[in-house]
Amino acid sequence: MNQLYSSKLLENVVNEFSKLPGIGKKTAMRMALHLLRQDEESVKQFGQAVIRLRSEVMYCRECHNLSDTDLCEICSSPRRDHSMVCVVETVRDVMSIENTMQYQGVYHVLGGVISPMDGIGPADLTIDSLERKIASGAVSEIILALSATMEGDTTNFYIFRKVKHNEVTVTTLARGLSVGDELEYADQVTLGRSIINRMPFESTLKK
Amino acid sequence: MNQLYSSKLLENVVNEFSKLPGIGKKTAMRMALHLLRQDEESVKQFGQAVIRLRSEVMYCRECHNLSDTDLCEICSSPRRDHSMVCVVETVRDVMSIENTMQYQGVYHVLGGVISPMDGIGPADLTIDSLERKIASGAVSEIILALSATMEGDTTNFYIFRKVKHNEVTVTTLARGLSVGDELEYADQVTLGRSIINRMPFESTLKK
Repeated sequence: MNQLYSSKLLENVVNEFSKLPGIGKKTAMRMALHLLRQDEESVKQFGQAVIRLRSEVMYCRECHNLSDTDLCEICSSPRRDHSMVCVVETVRDVMSIENTMQYQGVYHVLGGVISPMDGIGPADLTIDSLERKIASGAVSEIILALSATMEGDTTNFYIFRKVKHNEVTVTTLARGLSVGDELEYADQVTLGRSIINRMPFESTLKK
Repeated sequence: MNQLYSSKLLENVVNEFSKLPGIGKKTAMRMALHLLRQDEESVKQFGQAVIRLRSEVMYCRECHNLSDTDLCEICSSPRRDHSMVCVVETVRDVMSIENTMQYQGVYHVLGGVISPMDGIGPADLTIDSLERKIASGAVSEIILALSATMEGDTTNFYIFRKVKHNEVTVTTLARGLSVGDELEYADQVTLGRSIINRMPFESTLKK
């Protein structure tokens, strides 16, 4: 049943909010009424932040990460190792890896993974731009940091075949038990892989 | 730990969204990235709808409901019975009752209930305006439609005492079993009240 609104302005906002992922009409209404209780200036800030984000944000010309400038902060930083490129699916993955504070190289955001089921082919991703970057010779290692799914594996293999004729080391994220996992509760595939890819005990002592 | 953002514009929007009730940083990020995938015009509409809501919406001078005009649609409608006033807590309650399509009178939005624990006294609500409306003699019945809580009951009683010297019928919503309830699962208090307030069987046949 359609909700009846006493205000068209309210109805508009509820409709707009309910277009957001995971937001229904009831939550949208709660949000709209919440904003009505805020002072006018902060609501204006809210609206303008949204409008500016969409109209002003750019994609870095080097790594395709979200950026406020033509070249993102990471790509323009002299403190980062530009010969090491971590290939990720999305902007969120960059943030996840940055949050670990364990990586000093740069990134390359693919924009997704090859997925014939969803109609996403190599041409829809930024693989061309990655190839050019590697062909230029400035990259010594690429780290494939895609999801451990069939699509991720396919994309890994596709990229590997495209770049293997260059002098570049291709690595991928370690797969194994999560830190803190108990063997009893680990899934079979992960446990199996972690036996196959076992590593010298000594190497775990270095950190 | 603080999230690191590659874009200040993105960070702003995530912060703004996460001020909304029930929205954390992760959901806020999902919303911001969702908006980035929409076309610029619809994002502009979204932002402007929010800004306009806060700056242009009014409260009806008669019933204090949200309205786009000085006098709301319900209060200005000649098809509504202006001698019957339904007293509710919030704007949402008006919508709930309107959705039943069973009520043809007008409303009075109190803006809450008397709650000493939350520091809300009669002066914080629109009770004065209700009293004036009743004193003017144009109202023949008020229906108290507040929550069935201690605060609601207190407010009901306060209003009743304030208006009983006028020639006005004061009624309240029927309390009893919900339509579709099984006796076995009804709570004791509701079941008890529904026995005390039993009604002639014949009256249930009329509808």
